[in-house]
Amino acid sequence: MQIYDLIQKTRRKETLSDTEVRYLINGFTQGEIPDYMMSAWLMAVCCQGLSTEETVSMTLAMRDSGECLDLSGVGGITVDKHSTGGIGDKTTLLIAPIVAACGGFVPKMSGRGLGFTGGTIDKLESIPGFSVEISVPDFMKQVREIGCAVISQSGNLTPADKKIYALRNLTATVDSIPLICSSIMSKKLALGADCILLDVKYGNGAFMKTPESAAELAEIMVSVGKLAGKKCRAVITDMNAPLGHAVGNALEVSEVIGILQNNDENALSELALALSAHMLELSGKGDFQTCLKLASGAVTSGKALEKLAAMITAQGGDASVTENTAKLPKSKIQKLFRAEQSGYISGIHSEQVGLACLELGAGKTAARSEIDYSAGVVFLHDVGDFVSAGEVLGIIHGSADELCERAKQRLLRAVRISDEKPEISPLIHQIIS
Amino acid sequence: MQIYDLIQKTRRKETLSDTEVRYLINGFTQGEIPDYMMSAWLMAVCCQGLSTEETVSMTLAMRDSGECLDLSGVGGITVDKHSTGGIGDKTTLLIAPIVAACGGFVPKMSGRGLGFTGGTIDKLESIPGFSVEISVPDFMKQVREIGCAVISQSGNLTPADKKIYALRNLTATVDSIPLICSSIMSKKLALGADCILLDVKYGNGAFMKTPESAAELAEIMVSVGKLAGKKCRAVITDMNAPLGHAVGNALEVSEVIGILQNNDENALSELALALSAHMLELSGKGDFQTCLKLASGAVTSGKALEKLAAMITAQGGDASVTENTAKLPKSKIQKLFRAEQSGYISGIHSEQVGLACLELGAGKTAARSEIDYSAGVVFLHDVGDFVSAGEVLGIIHGSADELCERAKQRLLRAVRISDEKPEISPLIHQIIS
Repeated sequence: MQIYDLIQKTRRKETLSDTEVRYLINGFTQGEIPDYMMSAWLMAVCCQGLSTEETVSMTLAMRDSGECLDLSGVGGITVDKHSTGGIGDKTTLLIAPIVAACGGFVPKMSGRGLGFTGGTIDKLESIPGFSVEISVPDFMKQVREIGCAVISQSGNLTPADKKIYALRNLTATVDSIPLICSSIMSKKLALGADCILLDVKYGNGAFMKTPESAAELAEIMVSVGKLAGKKCRAVITDMNAPLGHAVGNALEVSEVIGILQNNDENALSELALALSAHMLELSGKGDFQTCLKLASGAVTSGKALEKLAAMITAQGGDASVTENTAKLPKSKIQKLFRAEQSGYISGIHSEQVGLACLELGAGKTAARSEIDYSAGVVFLHDVGDFVSAGEVLGIIHGSADELCERAKQRLLRAVRISDEKPEISPLIHQIIS
Repeated sequence: MQIYDLIQKTRRKETLSDTEVRYLINGFTQGEIPDYMMSAWLMAVCCQGLSTEETVSMTLAMRDSGECLDLSGVGGITVDKHSTGGIGDKTTLLIAPIVAACGGFVPKMSGRGLGFTGGTIDKLESIPGFSVEISVPDFMKQVREIGCAVISQSGNLTPADKKIYALRNLTATVDSIPLICSSIMSKKLALGADCILLDVKYGNGAFMKTPESAAELAEIMVSVGKLAGKKCRAVITDMNAPLGHAVGNALEVSEVIGILQNNDENALSELALALSAHMLELSGKGDFQTCLKLASGAVTSGKALEKLAAMITAQGGDASVTENTAKLPKSKIQKLFRAEQSGYISGIHSEQVGLACLELGAGKTAARSEIDYSAGVVFLHDVGDFVSAGEVLGIIHGSADELCERAKQRLLRAVRISDEKPEISPLIHQIIS
């Protein structure tokens, strides 16, 4: 088999066989195919696409490139969730304890942030003492005993994805549906949960800019999951405004605790309950309405908060934060920012909010590898609210005045205020199963 | 400037500025841009194309990557010719002495074969003693004194092209109009002739399969040439059958000598006269009809043959081959092959003929770096001729029986015989200026 011919085929939109795709993925992972050939092939994929069959072959080849976990030791039906990511997305921190409190099993490996604010792992690490580096046997034991565990990628899972992702990240071959699908699904399949719920986001704060492109990605991921023998479903959700009120690592943990303490109820809590219900339904806990009641009950009863505390304790963290969020890292400066005119909040530009938080130190940049866990912003209003000129829109948390001032300017541009009350679109746009 | 963003722009069909294109080409040539980034960009170019302006920028950046010759020392208007190559194409060996015999100046740097049969350089090296490695001052002196010289690429011309071509050849990014254009035209412009005639071939033995794609390539090359201040014209020619009767290095030299000895007249000689006339017209020797008569007169008078002999002598070769072609390398075996049925020759598949000659040893392969100069095939008929079953179609020249037998099987498949007399399309399809 000649690599040249395989690149040529993809360039000409001819279909590669399963053997040919595996030859490419394995050859590259094992260092037999040089970077310059692989990047040419990846660009051909970006421009010409791959068929569903080719995407399945690529995903399974990547899954099989390393270790695949056997979660049967958990002793129940396991359910995993993946979000394509967005500004203020802390749903994992909510759904893991909620589903566990309802008798589900959530084994979760998450990533660190790749820009903007931190990833789920970074958020958890803002809890004093919390460890995300846990051995696979301890991870399984925790899922069996508590019902949930959230750790960073562990073991030798999908080395092909690590190598391919690094190359994509340098060659402008990131935003391609078959490449995104194979990257996400190979990791999900190697982790080995029985059920997979995918939260595919669209909007200005997400990879996919339109609901149509998000649905296209969701369709292929669900197909791949099912062909690999998993129960698989996707929800298409709106990321045109940040999810919830807080953006920034410790601030988001604090918001999660507030919701589980029943102190807060908003679009975020609503989405978290819906996602939890989908996960419980996939796990066989009843129909959707039944599962939604189960999830809601776990929050009102305080059982979900207890699960969060148990998970924090099991992973070495200080669980007293679930009673007193003041124990989370706190920024030196809190600066208010106010509406410059009266009107309805018609939109909050997620991407700009993400950039503001990145500049505050909430995420890593090429120039700065340390995260300021306390940095970020908390909004006091939702899209659709009426605000008067001079009314406080939110609180900026930062380590220096000039950083807060720069963030303020960006946030004032991000919050759009208009005379007419905007139509609020539902957070869940579509369900694909 | 971030390479990532430049790759992304081309992928999204956004236009790069001249500065951006030069940054890419210079960065890669100087080793600052790694292969894997360049191959991703080249694949994006193959899939999404480049604008005329971008192609001009790329070509000029490649021209400027190394030495550019100053041919003013020749003391007259210089005219270069480039053919995109095809099976049996020995026109350079004809037009260089014809144009020189008419008072033109032809400074020609040619390439070696890249598959199939040899390139012009390989053909010339089949002449005993002939040297293609000549210093630039000697090259210019020869053009000034004799009117023509054909040498292999010399000096540090277009290092960018050498590096980019090597990468394209490994990453299935060869057949792209802007990339082919920049590769050809950067070399032509660095050589520095005042006028450039391009012979762009289409058909089953050529890079471009259709007259439309050949015209597209020709248009952009002529535009680039003119924008760089050259007199530039292109002819679109048919390469659906081999050009002339002989395919194979020494066999082609022998055919050229036959034509210049006035022993042979066919489509090849007709094309060579037309190309010579275009070159003379570009050089300011009169209108096309006048130039065609000049060219024709140079052949019938024997002056062109004298120029060929003078060029061979100047480059260290044995010029007596122009009187006695038996002094050229001769194969151990000559094997006839015969028509299996009666009918009209309706086509000769150039690509298959090329492959047959390659297998006979007339070109280099990955496994064999030595060329058998004597190997090849000579056809006795043209497309359109009527042949009877059993009639000799041609003569195979090879070094071993089994090689000749294999070539025979391929050649019998390549020659199509049908009951109806085929329409013969003119060799020159279109002129673009």
